[in-house]
Amino acid sequence: MTTLVIYDIPDDRIRDRMATACKDYGLVRIQYSAFLGELNHNRREELAYRLRHTLGRNEGNVQLFPICDKDVRLRVEIEGERRRSERVEP
Amino acid sequence: MTTLVIYDIPDDRIRDRMATACKDYGLVRIQYSAFLGELNHNRREELAYRLRHTLGRNEGNVQLFPICDKDVRLRVEIEGERRRSERVEP
Repeated sequence: MTTLVIYDIPDDRIRDRMATACKDYGLVRIQYSAFLGELNHNRREELAYRLRHTLGRNEGNVQLFPICDKDVRLRVEIEGERRRSERVEP
Repeated sequence: MTTLVIYDIPDDRIRDRMATACKDYGLVRIQYSAFLGELNHNRREELAYRLRHTLGRNEGNVQLFPICDKDVRLRVEIEGERRRSERVEP
């Protein structure tokens, strides 16, 4: 199932570790602090566990949204000028 | 239908206007740059139109995800320490 992960974390180091975890699970960056990709139930649970462990007691908030195919097709993206740094992955 | 709006916008003024638009449509801030709430199809289209107009040719990216009730119930939230500023609305 498509899974969206969004996070709001002030500490750069912790935020980078969130991104690394998402990438390790095959998710693709769609915004600076948002990743999207396919995860089955078990993988989603695993990723949630890892993100929870990574955040620990640090300041921040992370949310995972499973999104069914029907809803994914209704997604609307509004793109302005491309961000000059960081958003586009190599 | 529940709608999630996430945005990634470097300009403070434009970002604030995004937040204002989301609040005007009754959405609730769940992260610094993420809002969630109920919108029917027409209201979602209207909000998308306003966000597109607000972003214009400025740098940034905005995404709207309609999320069905079944998926909303599967949402996972991981909360660290509470952010000291801005995330919690009055």
